[in-house]
Amino acid sequence: MEFNPATLDPNAVYRLLVGSIVPRPIAWISTISADGVANLAPYSFFTVASCNPPVLSVTQVNPRDRLSKDTLANLQATGACVVNIVSAALAEQMNATCADYPSGISEFTAAGIARAPGAVVAAEGVADAPVRFECRLRQVIEISAEPSGGTMMLLDVVHIHVADHVLANGAIDPQLLDAVGKMGGNGYAHTRERFDLVRPVYRRSE
Amino acid sequence: MEFNPATLDPNAVYRLLVGSIVPRPIAWISTISADGVANLAPYSFFTVASCNPPVLSVTQVNPRDRLSKDTLANLQATGACVVNIVSAALAEQMNATCADYPSGISEFTAAGIARAPGAVVAAEGVADAPVRFECRLRQVIEISAEPSGGTMMLLDVVHIHVADHVLANGAIDPQLLDAVGKMGGNGYAHTRERFDLVRPVYRRSE
Repeated sequence: MEFNPATLDPNAVYRLLVGSIVPRPIAWISTISADGVANLAPYSFFTVASCNPPVLSVTQVNPRDRLSKDTLANLQATGACVVNIVSAALAEQMNATCADYPSGISEFTAAGIARAPGAVVAAEGVADAPVRFECRLRQVIEISAEPSGGTMMLLDVVHIHVADHVLANGAIDPQLLDAVGKMGGNGYAHTRERFDLVRPVYRRSE
Repeated sequence: MEFNPATLDPNAVYRLLVGSIVPRPIAWISTISADGVANLAPYSFFTVASCNPPVLSVTQVNPRDRLSKDTLANLQATGACVVNIVSAALAEQMNATCADYPSGISEFTAAGIARAPGAVVAAEGVADAPVRFECRLRQVIEISAEPSGGTMMLLDVVHIHVADHVLANGAIDPQLLDAVGKMGGNGYAHTRERFDLVRPVYRRSE
């Protein structure tokens, strides 16, 4: 089937994007509001924007839910967040933080999630997250102000916590990490069925 | 373990990022050079930047390889590309396009990959890709010019092709799509072990 996105309903475009750009890593972002309320919400339009210096990018679709607005508002008010990585063991708790709680209610409290203090930022992280990236807001780039448009948050990584139990020989072990990815709709994917492909080397004939 | 990225070797930072921000969707990007050579290379720092209008973001780590330079150079020269989605059946062919071919050699030819003409762009796509996003270059954002820094390409989606065999009831079916995700190192993950979590609804008490 052929689709011209300019003539499609934005919801149909959204479903094509989230159904085919898979599996997506999950940034489970904790922030603190100017009033001191800890917020926690998952995002899957998330990737690496630079390795030197380390910069993460997270895009919120506006204005789909209150939670994503809390995250951006808190980032802009306090300048920092923690990007928590979601293992399979944390998936249910992560999903619980998708609920549309009022701004005054902390998802940590509502969903019974243990907190870990930030090492260098005021925002708290998820204590049981296998990896926590403590970040400071670098830049906000509005890609589109339309409904379902995107606002990209670029985050400078200022501290990294890796739980000992996911390290093997000094590196993160994918089996021990046991991360989950986001699929379309309410779908998630495990990372338990893996394979390696050795990157080929082109040998010039002369 | 605690890491301060400011004092870590950039390669160590890279390994922490690619080992924990997983699974990543793969943009297998085809372009055409000013000289008419078709280029094809995979990227996994790839996500959605907006749904209305649809915009994709792909970041190349500079200047790690010649292929990624070809993609950006071609995008800047000709303004268009095709983002091909990688099913498990295409993973070996995708990996073959990681080889460091000279600019004058097309990965389509070298790896024996069938081409599909673009519907609205000059770049050709991968004929067997289950989904092809035809895109025009919207903007290039240099996040960091350092080695291992990132250059982000924002791409306007102007046409979407979805193979009939991955559609069920008018939507993309994750089992039929059978996408693969990128893990750290040479690792990949299947999307065959999936689960659903129903997004909770917060009910206000009054």
